[in-house]
Amino acid sequence: MFSGAQVSLYPMSDDFVGIILNAIEALDPWRDQLRLETDSLSTLIVGPPEVLFPAMRDLFCATARSGIHTTMHATVSRGCPGEPDDPICTPVAGGPRGMSLADLVAAGRDRVAAAPILELDIAAQFSLYPLGIGHHMDEIYGCIEFLKNSGTYDRSKNFCTALRGDAGPVFETLGQAFTGFGFDTGHLAMDVTVSANSPSDR
Amino acid sequence: MFSGAQVSLYPMSDDFVGIILNAIEALDPWRDQLRLETDSLSTLIVGPPEVLFPAMRDLFCATARSGIHTTMHATVSRGCPGEPDDPICTPVAGGPRGMSLADLVAAGRDRVAAAPILELDIAAQFSLYPLGIGHHMDEIYGCIEFLKNSGTYDRSKNFCTALRGDAGPVFETLGQAFTGFGFDTGHLAMDVTVSANSPSDR
Repeated sequence: MFSGAQVSLYPMSDDFVGIILNAIEALDPWRDQLRLETDSLSTLIVGPPEVLFPAMRDLFCATARSGIHTTMHATVSRGCPGEPDDPICTPVAGGPRGMSLADLVAAGRDRVAAAPILELDIAAQFSLYPLGIGHHMDEIYGCIEFLKNSGTYDRSKNFCTALRGDAGPVFETLGQAFTGFGFDTGHLAMDVTVSANSPSDR
Repeated sequence: MFSGAQVSLYPMSDDFVGIILNAIEALDPWRDQLRLETDSLSTLIVGPPEVLFPAMRDLFCATARSGIHTTMHATVSRGCPGEPDDPICTPVAGGPRGMSLADLVAAGRDRVAAAPILELDIAAQFSLYPLGIGHHMDEIYGCIEFLKNSGTYDRSKNFCTALRGDAGPVFETLGQAFTGFGFDTGHLAMDVTVSANSPSDR
């Protein structure tokens, strides 16, 4: 399996370059589990599905703690048939497969409740795309059921779901949505945007 | 059918609010064909599939002409079974259905070649997600064949394809990818990022 993300950070500041360069060291604790490649549009992060969201969380929080209005966008994917297998992507643990939706929702909610509180309020919105299956909406509706019980659910929007809360639980919710839905080895993509310090929220 | 986009503009400037507010009037010529709703994360643009990309193009170009490093992200969708039909989304013209891939590629290339030149160099990367079908990679590989012949192809990246060139042809390429691939009335989503004035490109 191949899993990873194309990640872009957008600090809305004249000093966006300096803010990003300062934040990148937040990835240091994760580097031995990840492979990184940066170009002018995004940074590719390749690694196990469970590690992607904690690593993105630390990168985003380090940037947002500048106090500057910052957003991060990520195109996250696992199991794409067009990508070669890579040992660095081996899942850390088996996914919660074979569970009923009710148990999956309860397990996900427990994981979100146990997430660290990072004292940073954020908003997020994301879309989940289970690919290569005819009943993709079943997986999406199952995930929405989890989200509504996650404690971070904000509201449904056209094409996506909005979350809100502390960065710890919000990123845990995103990670649970990514690893807990869609077939274990199936192709799943996620389009996610995270925002902090928006003047619209003041 | 329902079609639209959640669009976010990111000018990397202390004056991001002013730059965005100045740019929004670029949507005025499109307003009678679109419905807009803005919140703190994105602006929902609902309208016919063929109108979405020209409208986003004009919005992005108006912002990028500030000279500030600006990116735009859009989650674009048509035919989602979870969204109600809306008359404002009625396609302006029938899609290029029933054509061979070779003819589809040639027709798309002609449309891109005829696009207006806007004298603004941009980079883009995007992922196309044909949903609810078992052979989604066939549609994706067909689209990649078109992209490689579009005149705006830059390179393949993990999880996405990068384009580069003048804003006119690049947005025409994106629009052709969105309307020309996936089933006519099927569920198709696109995750697209556009960038201008990046210091990495200087």
